[in-house]
Amino acid sequence: MSRSIDLAVIPGDGIGQEVVAQGLKVLNAVLPQDVKLETKEYDLGAQRWHRTGDTLPDAELEALKNHDAILLGAIGDPSVPSGVLERGLLLKLRFAFDHFINLRPSKLFPNTATPLAGRPDIDFVVVREGTEGPYTGNGGSLRTGTPAEVATEVSVNTAYGVERVVRDAFERAAARPRKKLTLVHKNNVLVYAGHLWKNTFDRIAAEYPQVSTDYLHVDAATIFFVTQPERFDVIVTDNLFGDILTDLAAAVTGGIGLAASGNINPTGAFPSMFEPVHGSAPDIAGQGKADPTATILSVALLLRHLGYDTEAARIEDAVSADLAERDGGTARTTDEIGDALAVRVAS
Amino acid sequence: MSRSIDLAVIPGDGIGQEVVAQGLKVLNAVLPQDVKLETKEYDLGAQRWHRTGDTLPDAELEALKNHDAILLGAIGDPSVPSGVLERGLLLKLRFAFDHFINLRPSKLFPNTATPLAGRPDIDFVVVREGTEGPYTGNGGSLRTGTPAEVATEVSVNTAYGVERVVRDAFERAAARPRKKLTLVHKNNVLVYAGHLWKNTFDRIAAEYPQVSTDYLHVDAATIFFVTQPERFDVIVTDNLFGDILTDLAAAVTGGIGLAASGNINPTGAFPSMFEPVHGSAPDIAGQGKADPTATILSVALLLRHLGYDTEAARIEDAVSADLAERDGGTARTTDEIGDALAVRVAS
Ligand SMILES: CC(C)[C@H](C(=O)O)[C@@H](O)C(=O)O
Ligand SMILES: CC(C)[C@H](C(=O)O)[C@@H](O)C(=O)O
Repeated sequence: MSRSIDLAVIPGDGIGQEVVAQGLKVLNAVLPQDVKLETKEYDLGAQRWHRTGDTLPDAELEALKNHDAILLGAIGDPSVPSGVLERGLLLKLRFAFDHFINLRPSKLFPNTATPLAGRPDIDFVVVREGTEGPYTGNGGSLRTGTPAEVATEVSVNTAYGVERVVRDAFERAAARPRKKLTLVHKNNVLVYAGHLWKNTFDRIAAEYPQVSTDYLHVDAATIFFVTQPERFDVIVTDNLFGDILTDLAAAVTGGIGLAASGNINPTGAFPSMFEPVHGSAPDIAGQGKADPTATILSVALLLRHLGYDTEAARIEDAVSADLAERDGGTARTTDEIGDALAVRVAS
Repeated sequence: MSRSIDLAVIPGDGIGQEVVAQGLKVLNAVLPQDVKLETKEYDLGAQRWHRTGDTLPDAELEALKNHDAILLGAIGDPSVPSGVLERGLLLKLRFAFDHFINLRPSKLFPNTATPLAGRPDIDFVVVREGTEGPYTGNGGSLRTGTPAEVATEVSVNTAYGVERVVRDAFERAAARPRKKLTLVHKNNVLVYAGHLWKNTFDRIAAEYPQVSTDYLHVDAATIFFVTQPERFDVIVTDNLFGDILTDLAAAVTGGIGLAASGNINPTGAFPSMFEPVHGSAPDIAGQGKADPTATILSVALLLRHLGYDTEAARIEDAVSADLAERDGGTARTTDEIGDALAVRVAS
């Protein structure tokens, strides 16, 4: 195992700065003495775009390639037209670095506020495809702005892309105690893509007889997310369905203040990127109100990806213990939560 | 107002038969003596397909055109390959009859089981586009079944199609007490379609200064559906997002046993079609276990569409009163629920 980590940091916009600072604080606290951590900050996001018009210049994309991993805070600001930073920066990174596994665990930690009555036992992980589907930017518009406009969005799905994410999901399911994998799609309407996903899933399932499998349409899946979330173990799904389902999953497991994610390229050909599921929340930026836990849990995913399993588990246990002791009465600042977790992981 | 109703009935598969029977029972009970109700049943669905290979032959499509409206139970059976009946029958009807308004109200009735803690005050309606988006069947697959397969799904959006549904939604919002309309899309990623939807929405908003407006990405919308559903009044969205959101809406408002829908062509050029949001539930078919309330509420939407507002309201009030008095202890049969509601609307 490499005993040094060369980390690229993209704080980004809004609360991104604040939560990333806490993520780094906890990362520093959890790493053993002999692991050398180097970080390099990249100034990307809304401010940079306003200043220079750049979203992600080639030179920086090249430079980012040389790091072991990337920690990202949040991207987006209402002052920037919708889509500019999402497509020009965030999705550009996911596509350029072929992050075909968008890993999003959902766990209802003790003592957290879920909108669901009865506090079901939730502990699943969504393996969201990250490089295909309707996210490819394939589409266009004709006669834009006229009454005769036609705008299209093309969902692109390849056997290559579907197989690798489905295979990864089976591996993850096989490694978990419950060994259950659910495919979510909409193959009764999106018959071409649905056929490819379902056939690939069924074919690979034969190689994993120990994994029990299930199929749900995406609309039905949202029902089970609120009525029976305990039924899920691992879910594999396409890029757009995964986007929708993981926000819902975050909502039922205590909110997006706790939802972590990893944009992973398991081949190691490019650095993987870890980020909270939440956005830049400009309304509360700079006020010390943001919950850095999602970023800190994303750091745990980052550590596990780099082979530091013990340290990853220490962070997750610390979050669990911290949440169990949080009392609803006094809201802690971003910094205070970071401090508390840094203390816990160090001891 | 015409004092006769010529209704086409498509019971369909599974519990479709049972719930439609109760819908007709309540319809008969609520109609004033002088309104002549004629019904004609169409044998369409899984059994017909197995027998003849037909999903919806042209002659029947032509015949259906001549009715005032269509009442549909449920379509689909595991013995039929996924997509055959959905595309060949249900969606074929929606497209052939240009049902561009897919109207789906969500209301948390008293005394119903919601998975949400705190029983928020939910009363909104989703205006789902019904004839475009990823539902057009536009797409295909290349090198099918090989490791080099590419499968695409094209979301088609036109200014014509988007404008008419957005306009309808503004009309509905303007007619409601809260006068609030939320557009749901994903315009930070689906930039071409998103741009068309958002621009159309903003342009038409200027004609309705009395309606307050809001925009949410679909992923964020699912969060608010569970954390703050009371914030919604009218929602307008595309075909696929509407499909997903209305199942989630049904789940948080007491389950799909209560969710009604109308596939509406407001121009009157073709008959509109009313159906419960739920599917054919083959696992409980024929056992008298299905809740016919969603179908009965769909009959209310049908009556309102045909101008029988008083009768529609009588059904809705009856359902509300019936639910308020339902006691969790004794489960009633499909028939008993239909009987109870028929008695209430008649008195
Ligand atoms: C910001 C946006 C492009 C992004 C996505 O849609 O993937 C976000 O919603 C997410 O889930 O990471
Ligand atoms: C059965 C299916 C084609 C249909 C849809 O996707 O529209 C259903 O889910 C619905 O919501 O009416």
